[in-house]
Amino acid sequence: MDRDKIDGLILSSPSNISYLTDFRSRDAYLVISRKENVYITDARYIEEARKNLKGFTVEETNNSVFKKIADICRVLRLKCIGFEEKHLNFAAYKKIRKELDDNAGLVATSGLVEELRQLKTPRELEKIRKATEITVKAFRFIKDFIVPGTREIEVAAELERFIRYNGATASSFDIIVGSGPNSSSPHHLTSERKLKKDELVLLDLGVDYLGYKSDLTRVFFSGKINSLARKIYKIVLKAQELALAEIKPGVVISQIDGFARGYIEKKGYASFFGHGLGHGVGLEVHEEPYINKIEKKRIKAGMVFTVEPAIYLPDKFGIRIEDMVLVTKRGMEVLSGALDK
Amino acid sequence: MDRDKIDGLILSSPSNISYLTDFRSRDAYLVISRKENVYITDARYIEEARKNLKGFTVEETNNSVFKKIADICRVLRLKCIGFEEKHLNFAAYKKIRKELDDNAGLVATSGLVEELRQLKTPRELEKIRKATEITVKAFRFIKDFIVPGTREIEVAAELERFIRYNGATASSFDIIVGSGPNSSSPHHLTSERKLKKDELVLLDLGVDYLGYKSDLTRVFFSGKINSLARKIYKIVLKAQELALAEIKPGVVISQIDGFARGYIEKKGYASFFGHGLGHGVGLEVHEEPYINKIEKKRIKAGMVFTVEPAIYLPDKFGIRIEDMVLVTKRGMEVLSGALDK
Repeated sequence: MDRDKIDGLILSSPSNISYLTDFRSRDAYLVISRKENVYITDARYIEEARKNLKGFTVEETNNSVFKKIADICRVLRLKCIGFEEKHLNFAAYKKIRKELDDNAGLVATSGLVEELRQLKTPRELEKIRKATEITVKAFRFIKDFIVPGTREIEVAAELERFIRYNGATASSFDIIVGSGPNSSSPHHLTSERKLKKDELVLLDLGVDYLGYKSDLTRVFFSGKINSLARKIYKIVLKAQELALAEIKPGVVISQIDGFARGYIEKKGYASFFGHGLGHGVGLEVHEEPYINKIEKKRIKAGMVFTVEPAIYLPDKFGIRIEDMVLVTKRGMEVLSGALDK
Repeated sequence: MDRDKIDGLILSSPSNISYLTDFRSRDAYLVISRKENVYITDARYIEEARKNLKGFTVEETNNSVFKKIADICRVLRLKCIGFEEKHLNFAAYKKIRKELDDNAGLVATSGLVEELRQLKTPRELEKIRKATEITVKAFRFIKDFIVPGTREIEVAAELERFIRYNGATASSFDIIVGSGPNSSSPHHLTSERKLKKDELVLLDLGVDYLGYKSDLTRVFFSGKINSLARKIYKIVLKAQELALAEIKPGVVISQIDGFARGYIEKKGYASFFGHGLGHGVGLEVHEEPYINKIEKKRIKAGMVFTVEPAIYLPDKFGIRIEDMVLVTKRGMEVLSGALDK
C-alpha cells in the first residue's frame, strides 16, 4: 500500500480475497486499511463468513454493494483508495466512483496480491501437493477406461466421480479428453465421440483440494501408434526435459520457455506449439507466473508452475505433456514426478 | 446499435458472444459492425473457431489482443465504438482506449445482448428442456445414495458421473449437497460431512447441455423428520405455489416475488428468506431476468427463470424448493414439473 501511496484497498478478486482471509470467498468484496479490514457479502454467504472470518469486520449488503463499499471507505476516512483494475468491471468502477465522496481518490492497482501469491507458503504447498497426488491417482485409475468404444465424456464422468471419492472438492476446470484428431485442439471440449482403436487420447485433468488446484496432462497410447505420433511424442518429451533441467531460482522466465521452444523449433515444429510453456498454479489453475517467450522476470524459490510443451498437428493429433514443478532453493522438484510418461 | 448511436460494438462476454455466433465461445472478443463481424481468439481455440464460425471473419491474436481489437476498429473505420461495461475489466478498458485512435469514441453499453437473450428461441428452449430433463433424471437416480453414512461429496460424485452418462457436458455449478445444519447456508460448499439418520438433505443441481443450463433444488427427507421441518417445508411449498399461480405475461416482476415473500412474511419467517425469488436461466445459470422484490419490469412470453422460495434457519436447517418455468403466451409451464415435491 505504501508503494502505490494508498491508505485503503478495495479487493474484488475472489482468489485474492481468499488468500488474505484464509477463507474460501465467493461473491464478496474486501476493504483493507491500516485501521480495519471489512469483508462485505450478501445473505447467501453471511452465515459462513461470520463463523469463519477471524480479525475481519463482516458486513452484510442488501441492494447496493457499491454504496456499502463507499460507506465503509467514508467511515474509515480513506482518502486515497486503491482498486484491482483487472478484477473490477468498468460498470462497477463507475458505480463505486459515483458513490464515493468527491474528495476521495480512486486509484487503479494491479497485481499487489498476485505478487504475494506467487511464492507459496508451506501450508499452501501442502494443499497443492495433495491436489497433485489425487490427480496422479486419477490418471492411474482411468487407464482401464481408455479403450475403444468408450465416449470421451464417459472418461470425464468416471474421473469426476473418482476425484471426489479421493478427497477433491471438484475438478479445477472442465476435464479435457481429446481422442484422435480431437487432441489437436489444445482446449478441446470433451464430446460424445467414441475412442477408436489405434488412436491416442490426450487427457488434461486438474482438481481442487481445499481451494488449491492442480493441472496435469498425459497422452495415452493404445493399439498401434503410427511412427509420426511416436516421433512427435519423443520431441515433446525431450523439450520438457530440457526446460525442466534448467529450472532454478534466478533464471529468466523467457529462457525457460526458450529451452523447450528452441528444441521444438530445431525439429521443425515451432509453428505447431502456439501457447506458452506454462503457468502458475495455486488458488487459481492459471495464475502468475506465466511462463512464455516474452516474460523477462526471473523465477524464485517457492513458485509453482506447469511445464507443458506441446505440438498440435491440425486434423491429425496433438501431444502435450504437462507436469507441475516447485522451484526450490537450489533447483526444482517435479510435484507430479510420480506419474509415468 | 442505433439506440446507443454506435457504429461498432466490442463484445467480451463469452455468453453474449456464444449467443451471437451460435458457437461455444471461450477466451475471445467479437467486434460487430454493419460492414463486417470479426471474431478474435488465440492459438488454443483458433482451429475450432475457423471450422465452426460461419459469416464471421476469424482473426488470431498473439501478444496483445487489445492492439488487435484497435486495429480491427481502425480497418473497419469505426468512429463510435460501444463496449460491454459489465464484461470488460477496468484494465482492459484502459488498454483498448490507449490503442484506439484519439478520434474514435469508446462508449459504455449495458445489457444490449442480455436483453435479446431473455426471450428464448425454440432452438434454445429445446436445449434447456433437455438440460432440465437430465437433471430430473439425476434427482430420481440419486435417491438411493441419500442414506446415513454417505458423505455429501460422494452424493455430488455420483451425480457428476450420472449426468455425463446421460448427455450433459458438465454440471452448471458446483453441486450443492447440504446435509442437516449445512442446508441452512444457501450456497453451502459440499463437504466431507456424512449424512446422518433423521436429517434432511438439500440438493441443488444444474447441468450444461450444449451450452444451455438448468438449475433445480429439492430437499430429501429420510428417517424421522421433526415437526418444525415439516411445517417449514409446507410454508415454502405453498409460497412457491402462490407465485407460480400468478406467472403470466405482463405481471410486474416484484409482484411475483411478493406473492411468495408475502406468504412467508405472514407466517413470520420473512427474515429467513434473504435472497431473490429466482433468476433467468439460459446460456448462463444466473442471468436476466432477476426475480426480486425491487425489479419493476414485466415478464414476457419466452422468458425462462427459476422460482425458488426458501427459509433458512441458522444452525438448524434450510428448505428451498426450486423449479424452472417458461412464460407462455397465456401463462406458464413448469419445465421441471415431472419432478416430485
